[in-house]
Amino acid sequence: MRIYFHSQATKPAPWIDALRSALPEAEVAEWSPGAPPADYAVVWHPPQQLLDEQPGLKALFNIGAGVDALMKLNLPAGLRVVRLDDAGMSVQMAEYVCHALIRHVREFDIFEHEAKQGRWGYRRPRARGDYPVGLMGLGVLGARVAQAVRQFEFPVNGWSRTPRPLEGVRCFAGRGQFDDFLSASRVLVCLLPLTPDTEGILDRRSLGRLMPGGYLINVARGAHLVEPDLLALLDEGHLAGATLDVLREEPPPPDHPFLRHPRITLTPHNSARTLREESIAQIAGKIRALGRGEPVAGVVDPVRGY
Amino acid sequence: MRIYFHSQATKPAPWIDALRSALPEAEVAEWSPGAPPADYAVVWHPPQQLLDEQPGLKALFNIGAGVDALMKLNLPAGLRVVRLDDAGMSVQMAEYVCHALIRHVREFDIFEHEAKQGRWGYRRPRARGDYPVGLMGLGVLGARVAQAVRQFEFPVNGWSRTPRPLEGVRCFAGRGQFDDFLSASRVLVCLLPLTPDTEGILDRRSLGRLMPGGYLINVARGAHLVEPDLLALLDEGHLAGATLDVLREEPPPPDHPFLRHPRITLTPHNSARTLREESIAQIAGKIRALGRGEPVAGVVDPVRGY
Repeated sequence: MRIYFHSQATKPAPWIDALRSALPEAEVAEWSPGAPPADYAVVWHPPQQLLDEQPGLKALFNIGAGVDALMKLNLPAGLRVVRLDDAGMSVQMAEYVCHALIRHVREFDIFEHEAKQGRWGYRRPRARGDYPVGLMGLGVLGARVAQAVRQFEFPVNGWSRTPRPLEGVRCFAGRGQFDDFLSASRVLVCLLPLTPDTEGILDRRSLGRLMPGGYLINVARGAHLVEPDLLALLDEGHLAGATLDVLREEPPPPDHPFLRHPRITLTPHNSARTLREESIAQIAGKIRALGRGEPVAGVVDPVRGY
Repeated sequence: MRIYFHSQATKPAPWIDALRSALPEAEVAEWSPGAPPADYAVVWHPPQQLLDEQPGLKALFNIGAGVDALMKLNLPAGLRVVRLDDAGMSVQMAEYVCHALIRHVREFDIFEHEAKQGRWGYRRPRARGDYPVGLMGLGVLGARVAQAVRQFEFPVNGWSRTPRPLEGVRCFAGRGQFDDFLSASRVLVCLLPLTPDTEGILDRRSLGRLMPGGYLINVARGAHLVEPDLLALLDEGHLAGATLDVLREEPPPPDHPFLRHPRITLTPHNSARTLREESIAQIAGKIRALGRGEPVAGVVDPVRGY
């Protein structure tokens, strides 16, 4: 069995070593143009050439949860694309979202700023019940975030393409229930996969339907958001602020209006990092399962795009 | 049945109205000097005179979890002092602690600062396992905080006066195990009651035993901390920072060195506010239970002081 690794976002050596340890029976190498046929490839943002030269792959493993970059390539019909599911990412996502949510609702940003001005004093507390949280996307990550947010006793709404009942979550499904979902939420958390259906879904129309003083947390992809629409809604006062882990252009140009914006908190696409150890363990387990002819989780549906 | 209310920290009218609604059979009034004898008093920081004039009280209800201010008064022998247990406070405490913990460990403070300087980029992620959280105090609040912190998969140590087994928490008890508890923790969360035994417990000696790069979160009382010792350990680099909800002097004098300190985050004693509705429901329930001769939770042991 031969496995190729390819990523320009991370150093290949530690991944290749770890794959060799996890699958001692396999020959593991970094992919290079003209390399002989392999059984599996483990990739992040691979070039089209890799796919063209390797028509015999039994599966292509993406070392991330979002496969939108892969979906833009010409994939051979029938190629099994497998994304990471969880692998230590969902708890990081839960941390990120809870931090941003609590910070905004409890106004810890304001208290911190006031202390730096030498002020220490009262503000009328907000009621948690006034901040229903709407989660867009109820897959592995969304379910874990829902669990964490519920634990702090926030009301939670969830929206997904197809109905996904989740304990303690008021669930909405499909475009038909999208507006009801939005108008029942004050804090909106985007965890959707990026597909042609969801590109630009966070626009003036949808964000404008949130309860007044709405707050956006985007931990999915920059292209979900129509960036000028967010600025306009902040200026108009309909939205109170946003915490964004992703941007249309990463890294952003130095004059990007979100940098330095007083009501936008930016992080450099680190809400949930791929953890090598957990990812390799998951991929090795799936390669073994496929070898035994068993089904594996996380196989991408090429029609829906995730 | 007559009940008095007394607090200078909150407007009495809404509390008195709510007590009347919850206990329609009772005569509820604000206490004033010379008032006739009552059965119960609901108080926050009462004057000694109230206690002296009301020797027949069946119970004194404190509208907060910490009774340290009451313990400084001359209490009639045998007076039952009852503190609030939870009443909506523990979830607020869990929010506060998780926000401060995640913010520090994930370095969201640094990313936020960098974005305001126009920078957006990589920092080597930290491993959650390197940040064991030590909780001092494992009562109602401590147990709830432990549950929330565990949910984010941090290792959790707990320390209490007497052994208190808690699921998923490595428990230490008594002064004999205090040093072992400290040296196994990098983030220290103080949730202790303030008593002569715990006053000044956060000093150079104890904070100096934390793992290097330690972080302090104090949500208990300002007098738990020896403030100059914290400054010294921050200057020396043994501690990385602190988030403090309480100070020795509240509000702090305008030149207090913690205000504006780059590695100290201050909030104005609002980690867990007393919620009127929940508190009244709890107190009314306890008054009814006492009337039926049943035991109630939260009765203060005058010897241990909480």
